[in-house]
Amino acid sequence: MSREYLQPPRGIRDIVGREAELYEYLMEEFRRIARLNGFKPIIPPTIEFYKLFEAKSGEEIRKSMYVFEDKAGRVLALRPEVTASITRIYLRKLRGETKPIRLYYIAQCFRYEEPQYGRYREFWQGGLEIIGDKNVNSDLSVAFTASYFLDKVGVKHYYIVSNVAFHRLILSNAEIPVEKQDYILHLIDKGEIAKALDIVKKETNIIYHEILSKLIDKPLDKLEDLFREYHSIFKENIEVFEKEITRTIDFIDNLKQLGYHVIYDPKLVRGLAYYTSLIYEYKVFNDKIKTSIGGGGRYDDLTKTYGGPTEYLTGLALGLDRIALALSNNYNSIETAKEVIIISHSRIPLEYAYRILRILLDNNINAWIYRTEKISKGLSIANKKNAVMTIILGEREYREKKVSIKNMMSKEQVIVELDDVIETIKKYLNEHY
Amino acid sequence: MSREYLQPPRGIRDIVGREAELYEYLMEEFRRIARLNGFKPIIPPTIEFYKLFEAKSGEEIRKSMYVFEDKAGRVLALRPEVTASITRIYLRKLRGETKPIRLYYIAQCFRYEEPQYGRYREFWQGGLEIIGDKNVNSDLSVAFTASYFLDKVGVKHYYIVSNVAFHRLILSNAEIPVEKQDYILHLIDKGEIAKALDIVKKETNIIYHEILSKLIDKPLDKLEDLFREYHSIFKENIEVFEKEITRTIDFIDNLKQLGYHVIYDPKLVRGLAYYTSLIYEYKVFNDKIKTSIGGGGRYDDLTKTYGGPTEYLTGLALGLDRIALALSNNYNSIETAKEVIIISHSRIPLEYAYRILRILLDNNINAWIYRTEKISKGLSIANKKNAVMTIILGEREYREKKVSIKNMMSKEQVIVELDDVIETIKKYLNEHY
Repeated sequence: MSREYLQPPRGIRDIVGREAELYEYLMEEFRRIARLNGFKPIIPPTIEFYKLFEAKSGEEIRKSMYVFEDKAGRVLALRPEVTASITRIYLRKLRGETKPIRLYYIAQCFRYEEPQYGRYREFWQGGLEIIGDKNVNSDLSVAFTASYFLDKVGVKHYYIVSNVAFHRLILSNAEIPVEKQDYILHLIDKGEIAKALDIVKKETNIIYHEILSKLIDKPLDKLEDLFREYHSIFKENIEVFEKEITRTIDFIDNLKQLGYHVIYDPKLVRGLAYYTSLIYEYKVFNDKIKTSIGGGGRYDDLTKTYGGPTEYLTGLALGLDRIALALSNNYNSIETAKEVIIISHSRIPLEYAYRILRILLDNNINAWIYRTEKISKGLSIANKKNAVMTIILGEREYREKKVSIKNMMSKEQVIVELDDVIETIKKYLNEHY
Repeated sequence: MSREYLQPPRGIRDIVGREAELYEYLMEEFRRIARLNGFKPIIPPTIEFYKLFEAKSGEEIRKSMYVFEDKAGRVLALRPEVTASITRIYLRKLRGETKPIRLYYIAQCFRYEEPQYGRYREFWQGGLEIIGDKNVNSDLSVAFTASYFLDKVGVKHYYIVSNVAFHRLILSNAEIPVEKQDYILHLIDKGEIAKALDIVKKETNIIYHEILSKLIDKPLDKLEDLFREYHSIFKENIEVFEKEITRTIDFIDNLKQLGYHVIYDPKLVRGLAYYTSLIYEYKVFNDKIKTSIGGGGRYDDLTKTYGGPTEYLTGLALGLDRIALALSNNYNSIETAKEVIIISHSRIPLEYAYRILRILLDNNINAWIYRTEKISKGLSIANKKNAVMTIILGEREYREKKVSIKNMMSKEQVIVELDDVIETIKKYLNEHY
């Protein structure tokens, strides 16, 4: 096999060593904090029917999916994101549950995009979803839980907030078909504002071009005036605008009261086509990571796309790879395991070593056995592995039913009875760590 | 979208509710116990080049892979198992590490097989690998760690042990090419012993048919005599046989001394073509799960298949889906979260509720906020969700800077100062749980 096969496919990584420990730590903390906040686990499939994502993923994502046929000719896709699956699973299995339903997941996703700093073709997401509650508190609850997690792991972050209902209502009022709306929003998402506005200009009454331009420029506290100004056009939709403005203000104000920095930016529309209301992204105060580290929003009625009833849905996903990058200069947050290595001479029965190992494990002390013909080789390995202590089991120790315990820092060594092993090791660990 | 798209693709599952909690519990315990035993995490990619698996996965697995081309025409595969990736990553990234290298992973794998009880097209594996140690202690270390995990989660299990070096040495001595050896072993694995022996009969000297037949019949303690009987044929290979017999006996004896039930069965060869020596499977004392719940073995020199140097390798994988099935009659092993729901009236500022939430979370009490116009609706939801307590924040509570705490079992309700919330709740939880 040639050396090229030592590489993983392009854009896909092997995560090892301290980096793997950081990922494990982030995933465990995410799970712990999601559960602490009353979210329950859900494990969606990695492979779905392509059609599930085709409808509402948005152009960018649809084009970058890994799509393939299985042996029966089913068109499948590796999930590019998880919300579509959660909505499907809710319709299939969770409709009888008491609402609001609070769910969390950790899942790798796949997008065939040009790899760049912090962007991989296989990437990890931690997500939170609340189904069945229209109150802004549910938007806030997922956002707060994510912030609580980011605070715990030490990622300083702030929010960019927008509300895609504003854009959608304007474009719908202008009778622009949904697919074209998706495309216009896609352009805004890519930063091509002028091009987006041009299409609006061409497609419909110039007044909508004017309103959309103003929406994109105005601060949040001027929006109510803006929509009132066009009262004759929006008619009863004014009420919807007002509700969405209130939701956006409530969301932002509460996040601020919780101590987070928030920027309202109507140029944010996000790449996913299923959002219907409030949307937001997480950014970090870090020069290297310019893209967002996660985001979410409200996607009410995505259920209807899959043939289900109307439903309230809100959620977010954090990009664990980017969070790992943001923390990669500071691995100190992950504790180094304090390990004991039991060096067992080849001539003594392994059973003796395993008896001692079990005592250590049952006392939650990290330990493993190295069996060797030369104790000195074991000590050298223990040194390189940064073991804090070694337990040496030579022929003499075995004969006397004792063990030698060596402090790998001070190099002190004592011989103790089998019954005193745990006490000796615990005492040492307590004194030194 | 038609109802058929509410289903995941055939053979692939949605894991929700108590089952998802069981999976999370199993994965967390697996990780915890792997780390306790000195294994370090590794996160291999879900997608690999097809060629990586083509060489040594074995016929059964090779035929059942999800294979597809990416947009650049690369032939990729969803991993059908993880050991090939670990070996590749070792060669690429870990060759400089001090040996033995102890690694663990949790990863979903994919095989396009006919779905049946306990067999899914996407399935979860927890794996352990040790690189760079030929001592039987390393085989024992991975096996013991898996048993320690199974014991902790409450899966009574036993071992089936074999050693494929015996079969390989006989077939190699008979000058049967490796590919045909793979096929013969594949037949034995499928239980088609007669057919396998027939091929040996046709391909080579009848003496090898005789030896292989005897190998498959003899108990372990008669093997040394068997190979000595054919001393003139095996010549210097006798020594290799003896070493492998010793390894097998040591492995089995130590497992027995550790308290596990072990059966030696030379008809076990396992489906993976990369094993070179000791192999074993885990079975459960459970009528419903007849297949193994995991297995492993020694696969020395798989590194050479990928163009690397000779190396000692041993490892195993446990099937978490089957372990979950084995435990599915007894969900009691997973603790139910004791949850507090904060019912916040719509007319009071959410900020007040979040201030209290944060106090609970910082004290590791599971909690979330439900905001409602009717406190009674919140209480009804809290009841259905089995919350142990509710904190009620109505207008009066807000005005007086107090909170009402309701015990959802006894229905007792008290009003306390903000400063006394934590103490009151902790006292209650300590008294009742």
